[in-house]
Amino acid sequence: MVFSSQLMEAAVNEFAKLPGIGRKTALRLVLHLLKQEKESVSLFGETISRMRNEIRFCQKCHNVADADRCSICTNPGRKQALICVVESLREVMAIEATQQFNGVYHVLGGVISPLDGIGPDQLHIESLLHRVTEEQAEELVFALSPNIQGDTTIYYIQKKLAHTGIRITTIARGIAFGGELEYTDEMTLARSLQNRLPIENYVNH
Amino acid sequence: MVFSSQLMEAAVNEFAKLPGIGRKTALRLVLHLLKQEKESVSLFGETISRMRNEIRFCQKCHNVADADRCSICTNPGRKQALICVVESLREVMAIEATQQFNGVYHVLGGVISPLDGIGPDQLHIESLLHRVTEEQAEELVFALSPNIQGDTTIYYIQKKLAHTGIRITTIARGIAFGGELEYTDEMTLARSLQNRLPIENYVNH
Repeated sequence: MVFSSQLMEAAVNEFAKLPGIGRKTALRLVLHLLKQEKESVSLFGETISRMRNEIRFCQKCHNVADADRCSICTNPGRKQALICVVESLREVMAIEATQQFNGVYHVLGGVISPLDGIGPDQLHIESLLHRVTEEQAEELVFALSPNIQGDTTIYYIQKKLAHTGIRITTIARGIAFGGELEYTDEMTLARSLQNRLPIENYVNH
Repeated sequence: MVFSSQLMEAAVNEFAKLPGIGRKTALRLVLHLLKQEKESVSLFGETISRMRNEIRFCQKCHNVADADRCSICTNPGRKQALICVVESLREVMAIEATQQFNGVYHVLGGVISPLDGIGPDQLHIESLLHRVTEEQAEELVFALSPNIQGDTTIYYIQKKLAHTGIRITTIARGIAFGGELEYTDEMTLARSLQNRLPIENYVNH
């Protein structure tokens, strides 16, 4: 690409650093912003910078927050004794969107994955163990991705908490709503047979 | 989407205003930026704001510039008497990328389109007419989109310049390189038959 303005070239380069945005898309975005009011483009730039500079992470659950504690941890209507353990912010948002969970979260910041060099020390596991004992938590619900890394992480934490007697559960795995039985993989089908539910439970949900 | 941080929500909203970026993509971009260094995110925001606030348009050809004149108009190696008339910046960049044009440009800022309320007065036509007479331009090459609006614009400008005797041309229209004759539309095929070239010209190109 040949630019007749270095300012424009710099802006295209910045956009092109973002994931999934190539140079052609970056140019399209810059040409769009060039047509906007100066004030609204300044607001765009400031909002992004400010977000990164001022955002904080909840000291309790490691979720994003605008203060020392996130809005979920400080909500008196939520059960502090029910902790849902997730990998990242995305899962917090996905679960919040269902409006079916009334407890609090603990964001691990990843899962144990020795091949990627991620061990328990790189994750917020120590603070979770501390929370469980300090806050008299009653139940830990694991909502991690159903793969080996997720299972390893659950196993590790479960071992560490075995002495406390806390109830440890994991979200149900089975056939997705609207899914076709015929096209479900064997592993999922086998697990959903093992974990079959009494019909009353099904009707209640 | 449920956000536990207003700063994050504001950033997602700003990204989602951009064309072709929905809220899910906006969230993905924000989560990516959250993992970057504060300095690099600040640089991103500043570069975008600065681009919009400091960019200028060449007083001669209306191309984007970092000063009063763009780098093409001030380049002594380019023929000032050969002016390529284009609709927008995009076309300047597309033609520059071919490295086959050694003249200068004139960016109209659009084409005449009465249905969209765009008449000659909304475009940089007056300054083009002025340039042609002031600068002893020898040739005007139109590189507008091949549609009714483009043709109307060419016709209008040509009429206005009829008395000057300047040479007026338009970029060749025909079958694209690598295109299949069979799938070419009738209009293009008919035009490319009318404007057939002696084989020497073809070989030279």
